[in-house]
Amino acid sequence: MQKKGELVSYRPDIKVVDCTLRDGGLVNNFEFSEEFVRDLYKTNIKSGIDYMEFGYKASKEIFDVNKFGKWKFCDEEDIRSIVGDNDTDLKISVMADVGRTDFRKDIIDKKDSVIDLVRVATYINTIPAALEMVEYCNKKGYETTINIMAISKSNDSDLDDALELIGHSCVDTIYLVDSYGSLYPEQMRRLASKYLECADKYNKKIGIHAHNNQQLAFANTIETLTMGVSYLDSTVSSLGRGAGNCPTELLLGFLKNPKYDITPVLKFIENHINKLKADGVVWGYDIPYLLTGRLNQHPRDAIQFTADNRTDYSAFYQYLFDKDCG
Amino acid sequence: MQKKGELVSYRPDIKVVDCTLRDGGLVNNFEFSEEFVRDLYKTNIKSGIDYMEFGYKASKEIFDVNKFGKWKFCDEEDIRSIVGDNDTDLKISVMADVGRTDFRKDIIDKKDSVIDLVRVATYINTIPAALEMVEYCNKKGYETTINIMAISKSNDSDLDDALELIGHSCVDTIYLVDSYGSLYPEQMRRLASKYLECADKYNKKIGIHAHNNQQLAFANTIETLTMGVSYLDSTVSSLGRGAGNCPTELLLGFLKNPKYDITPVLKFIENHINKLKADGVVWGYDIPYLLTGRLNQHPRDAIQFTADNRTDYSAFYQYLFDKDCG
Repeated sequence: MQKKGELVSYRPDIKVVDCTLRDGGLVNNFEFSEEFVRDLYKTNIKSGIDYMEFGYKASKEIFDVNKFGKWKFCDEEDIRSIVGDNDTDLKISVMADVGRTDFRKDIIDKKDSVIDLVRVATYINTIPAALEMVEYCNKKGYETTINIMAISKSNDSDLDDALELIGHSCVDTIYLVDSYGSLYPEQMRRLASKYLECADKYNKKIGIHAHNNQQLAFANTIETLTMGVSYLDSTVSSLGRGAGNCPTELLLGFLKNPKYDITPVLKFIENHINKLKADGVVWGYDIPYLLTGRLNQHPRDAIQFTADNRTDYSAFYQYLFDKDCG
Repeated sequence: MQKKGELVSYRPDIKVVDCTLRDGGLVNNFEFSEEFVRDLYKTNIKSGIDYMEFGYKASKEIFDVNKFGKWKFCDEEDIRSIVGDNDTDLKISVMADVGRTDFRKDIIDKKDSVIDLVRVATYINTIPAALEMVEYCNKKGYETTINIMAISKSNDSDLDDALELIGHSCVDTIYLVDSYGSLYPEQMRRLASKYLECADKYNKKIGIHAHNNQQLAFANTIETLTMGVSYLDSTVSSLGRGAGNCPTELLLGFLKNPKYDITPVLKFIENHINKLKADGVVWGYDIPYLLTGRLNQHPRDAIQFTADNRTDYSAFYQYLFDKDCG
């Protein structure tokens, strides 16, 4: 597959999607201060970020609103309390999980909403339900994506079938997601090539959402971007579940479009991220996440190991290994 | 260039070179405890590591022996106090800097030494002096490498000339070094291709020494390895100057040769690395290193910024930027 763009120029089709609140919310139960959210919104505008994902549109039937911060639900008025009518170039995104969103109730007409993009997260065995949501949101007037999770556990022919199915839908962008941070650059390039073939055939765009279990989130993002992937997820200082995501500050350092400015992100880190760490919020690359990533496992055991302040890495590795063989 | 090997098999020509003491010594002035060094030696043997670099052969005329730990000088008896006659499969390496080594005095006949490999570190403008050292060490009976530093500041034609010159020497292995952690995978692949052409022509091997300023040390190592690079530098938990190196635990997780075992490395981390951090030794990826890496600068300003416990990243970035334009 032909390389798209080179290092000294830029591709205007590139879009950076800030997932700090959404993936970061998985670390702190979406309990962000007003100031954090407001400053992040301003930072994203100043940095030239293209989309800001505020959180999930989670079902209030399934999840108790008293047990989570408001960004798990992203009520229209809560977003508006930050962005007003969002008279800016920054677009607003929310994520909707298949089976965990009352989309017919909670996703209103686009004309009444400041939300621009609804991203539907699905496993490969719930694609038809994801497509139902996508068709619904598309009719309501939103841009849409489908993010297929856990593909490192799927086989190639299922993935081919899934992409074919999605290709026929009205979705705008299909996301290549490395849920477990288990994929090496050469595997990501192979997958990106597959996704981009589908994109060419059906006139879609391809996005990437990487995890940093093996310190490969940034590398995998820029490697697939070079092939033509154009929607790039990142979070400030990697903030996100487990090992976190592709760091925005690394990504903006790589992108050459002069509209992107790293300085506001650096200021945000100074003002908020070090405080978040001091407050005991824990995320980012560490040995336990490397081990689940390497073994292509969900990070939940590593998150627990970290929460328990354990450091018996070799025993933990043996446990994970035995579990896989059990 | 043709890909060498694939993900499910392994290449027997791959050698892992542990630089924990040598690059890590730049962080703590080579003040490692006996126990640390002894356990690292045992760990390397058990993990199937191919070479262990104990430190530098630094000149005692230039450097005061009272101001550094002994691994800056690597006296024969000090290495022997750890390895005896080293009756193992693990080979012993030392690094010798051009202009900072009394090689004619301090590098003795191989038959009287437990050292197997002398690695000569040089800038591109001191290659003739490096070659003189290589010829000397080769005649004494050692394996040799030349590690060309700071190539991200060199131009292509100088580098071509340097490789041609080195190709004609008796050196065994030429190292591709990303001194400032500034190079992206596509740049590293382009450079690796150039080095590998020289290797093919003159029957040399190519090694890689990466720095982690942009979280690319591991990615750059495995990407160039896939092209045919065979000597891979790594350090336990990235221990090394500034942002550190390619982490051994990530590298061994990638390599498929059954002789490599990650478990002893995990045990070493449990027993020593967390203690080192608790003792206040600071290294590894952080914002200041990302910024010097991104700007292709020596990490010294970032090391000072970190030592000063500063967090005004945006002002620091402006300072670095202005310096470059000054």
